[in-house]
Amino acid sequence: MLIVQKFGGTSVGSIERIRHVAQLMIDTQRRGHQVVGVVSAMSGETNRLVDLATQINPQPWSKEYDMLLASGEQVSVALVTLAINSLGGKARGLLAHQLGILTDSVYSKARIQGINTDALRREISQGVIPVVAGFQGVDVENNITTLGRGGSDTSAVAIAAALGADDCEIYTDVDGVYSTDPRLCSKARKLKTITYDEMMELAGLGAKVLQIRSVELAAKYKVSLHVRSSFDLIEGTRVVAEGPKMEQVVVSGIAADLNDAILTVSNLSDQPGLAYEIFSPLAQSTVVVDVIVQARAANAEEGLSLSFTVPKTDLPKAKEILEEKFRSRFPRMQIQSETNAAKVSIVGAGMRHHPGVAAKMFGVLAAAGINIKLISTSEIKVTVLVDASKAQEAVQRLHEAFELDKSQ
Amino acid sequence: MLIVQKFGGTSVGSIERIRHVAQLMIDTQRRGHQVVGVVSAMSGETNRLVDLATQINPQPWSKEYDMLLASGEQVSVALVTLAINSLGGKARGLLAHQLGILTDSVYSKARIQGINTDALRREISQGVIPVVAGFQGVDVENNITTLGRGGSDTSAVAIAAALGADDCEIYTDVDGVYSTDPRLCSKARKLKTITYDEMMELAGLGAKVLQIRSVELAAKYKVSLHVRSSFDLIEGTRVVAEGPKMEQVVVSGIAADLNDAILTVSNLSDQPGLAYEIFSPLAQSTVVVDVIVQARAANAEEGLSLSFTVPKTDLPKAKEILEEKFRSRFPRMQIQSETNAAKVSIVGAGMRHHPGVAAKMFGVLAAAGINIKLISTSEIKVTVLVDASKAQEAVQRLHEAFELDKSQ
Repeated sequence: MLIVQKFGGTSVGSIERIRHVAQLMIDTQRRGHQVVGVVSAMSGETNRLVDLATQINPQPWSKEYDMLLASGEQVSVALVTLAINSLGGKARGLLAHQLGILTDSVYSKARIQGINTDALRREISQGVIPVVAGFQGVDVENNITTLGRGGSDTSAVAIAAALGADDCEIYTDVDGVYSTDPRLCSKARKLKTITYDEMMELAGLGAKVLQIRSVELAAKYKVSLHVRSSFDLIEGTRVVAEGPKMEQVVVSGIAADLNDAILTVSNLSDQPGLAYEIFSPLAQSTVVVDVIVQARAANAEEGLSLSFTVPKTDLPKAKEILEEKFRSRFPRMQIQSETNAAKVSIVGAGMRHHPGVAAKMFGVLAAAGINIKLISTSEIKVTVLVDASKAQEAVQRLHEAFELDKSQ
Repeated sequence: MLIVQKFGGTSVGSIERIRHVAQLMIDTQRRGHQVVGVVSAMSGETNRLVDLATQINPQPWSKEYDMLLASGEQVSVALVTLAINSLGGKARGLLAHQLGILTDSVYSKARIQGINTDALRREISQGVIPVVAGFQGVDVENNITTLGRGGSDTSAVAIAAALGADDCEIYTDVDGVYSTDPRLCSKARKLKTITYDEMMELAGLGAKVLQIRSVELAAKYKVSLHVRSSFDLIEGTRVVAEGPKMEQVVVSGIAADLNDAILTVSNLSDQPGLAYEIFSPLAQSTVVVDVIVQARAANAEEGLSLSFTVPKTDLPKAKEILEEKFRSRFPRMQIQSETNAAKVSIVGAGMRHHPGVAAKMFGVLAAAGINIKLISTSEIKVTVLVDASKAQEAVQRLHEAFELDKSQ
C-alpha cells in the first residue's frame, strides 16, 4: 500500500518524538508499504514565530509573514529526514517550492491549486521516504504561502489525493475523534467511524482534530483518512463515505466552540441584494462568517437587523469593513458585538432521515433553563448560540439525551 | 549610491535590534541612496538549530542539515522586512531560491557560482529595499545549500559585486578591525584601513570580523568594504586595495587562534607526489589544512615526517582519512596530534618591502622564553605555533615590539 503519514506538532515536538515518528515511518516501510511523510512545525514553534512577528506589527499579514511561519515546517522536515537517515532508513526532505505545491496568493489562507508528483514518485520508486513540509505552498511568483492553522492536514490529504494513496494517516496527540470534547463531558466516547460530512461539520465547529478543508478535500477525492495517535498505536477513527448502516445513528457528535463572536447590525434599510453587499466584502477579506440570522424589527421604522458570527480574532476587521462600506449610506446603522457566547452544535448524518432532532435539542436546553440566542440548521447539523458559561452544561445534557455515551 | 548593508546575528538578535536596523536602512534610503539588505540568523539561532541536529546525529552533514540551518536566515529576512514595512519603508524579503543565488552542491561549505540580479534590480528601481537571506544558496537541483559559518559576509559581497554596488557595509557587534584581539591585549587599536590581503590573512587566522571568502571575493571584484558597528554608527574600518602609503606600515595586525590542532604523521617513505596524495583527500573532505611543515628525520630509516594544522573539529575526520588511505601502505606510520597549541601570526602588506620581519618576531618570542613549535611564512604573514598557555603573552610582546599601539 501507498500510505501518507502526517505528523502534527506534538508528534514532532521534541528530538525524542522525532526519532519515534522516524522509526514509525521506517517500520511502516519495512512492512512492505510505500510511505510519504508530511510534517508540521514542532509544537510551540509556530506560536513562537507568530509572537516575534506580532511584536513588530500586531497585524503582520503579508508575504513575509508566510515566509516566517513556513520556516517552522522547514525545521521539522530537516530533523525528521536526518532522524530517518540516521536510524538506517532512506529519506529526503522536500519543501513546497522543491516539490511544487502550487497555491493561490491569499497569504496565510492560501488554497492548493496543484501538486507536482514527479519528485515524490521518483523518490518512492527508489525506496526513499519523501518527508514533505506541511502547511506551506508557493504561488506562481514563487512566493512562499501558508494554508492557515491546521493546514498540514490539507497538505497531507492533497498529496494523498494527487498520488492516489491507499491511506492517509493523520497522527495527532489524541487517539481519534470523540463524540464530544472529553474536557467538557467525561462520558465522551471515541468513534470508530465518522462520515466526511459529519467530520466537516465538527471541524467547522471547533473540533481541532482536522482542518475542515482537509476533510472537504478527502471527501472530494475519496481519500481514506485515519485519525490516530503517534503516542499510542491503537486503531483511531476512520473518516469514511456514508454507508447504509449509518442512517441509524441520529447524532454522532456534539461540538462546542467559544472562539466566535456575535455581530448584530441593525437599522439598515431592507433593499434587494443587501445581504450580498454585506457578506461579499467580508468574504473578500477572508473573514469567515458562520451562523447568519436575519430578523425584521417589530417596528418597521427600525428597519432590517442582521446577526452573524465571526471568529473573535476577525471581529475588529469585520467592524471596520462594515463602518467603511455602510456608515455613509446608513448613518443610523448600529453595530453591536457579543463575545461571551458559545456555539453548541449537534451533528449527525442520520438527521437527514429523522425529523424532529432540532426540536428535541431545543427541548433539552429549555428543560435545563439554557437560553438560546441564535439558531442555525443545516442538513446534518443544528447549531445554537448560548451563553458561554452554559456551554459545558449544554454539551453534557445533549450528550446524555442523544445517548452518545452508548457504543456506536 | 547603491549600498549593500549586511547585518550579522547580534545586529538582528532581538526585536528591538531588528527595528533598529530596519530604521537604519530606511534612513540610508532617505538620504538618497539605494539600499539592499543582507541578513544573518538571529544570534543564537544557528547554534540552537545545530544543537537540534546533533542531538539526532552527531555528524548531521547532509542536504537536510543545510535546509535546517537556512531556516534561521529565513526568519530574519521575514522579520526585518516586516519591520521596514511597519516603520513606513518599502521592503521585500528574498530567499536564495527566490533571488537565484546559485551555488555548487558542497553542502555546508557551498560556493556561489552566480547571482541573478533581475529581481534585485526590479525592486530597487521601484524604491523597494530588497532584504536578502545571507548564508544560503540553491544548487542546480534546487536543494538549499549553505556557505559555511560567516557565509552571510560572502553573500553580501557577492551581491555587491553582482550589482556593481558603490559600497558594502558589514554591520557587526564590533566597530571595526583591531590591530589584535582586545581581549588578549588591552592596547589593541582600531585600524582606519586595512588592505584586502591583510584582511584575508587575518580572517584566515581566526579574526572573526569577516569570513575570508568574502574578502577574497571583495578583492577580486574590487568591492569597497566598510566594517562597522550597528550599535554605534561611528566610522569603522575600510578594507581597501593596497596604496603607495601603506608600505610604511610593516605589521598591521596580530592574530591568535586556538582552534587548530597540530597533526604529525611520521615514518612515511619519501616518494614523489606523497604530499599531494596526503593533502588531496583531506581537501576533498573539505578539511582545511593550514600550516604545513615537512621535515626529514636525522635517522634516514625513520623516513619522512609531515606536520600540519587542521581545525580541531576536523581532527577525527583527518585522522580517519589518513588511516584509511595510508595504513596498509605504511604499516609503521605514526599519527600524533596536539591540541594545546595556538597559532600566533603577524600580518602586514609592508613586509613585502621590509626584510627581517620574521627574524624580529622570533627574537621577540625568544626573549620572552616562548618556544616555537612550527613556523610558516607567506609574503605578508609570519605564523608560529606556540603553547596555548603562552598565546596571550606572545600577542602582547609582539604588539609592543611592532608598535601597533601607535596611531596608524
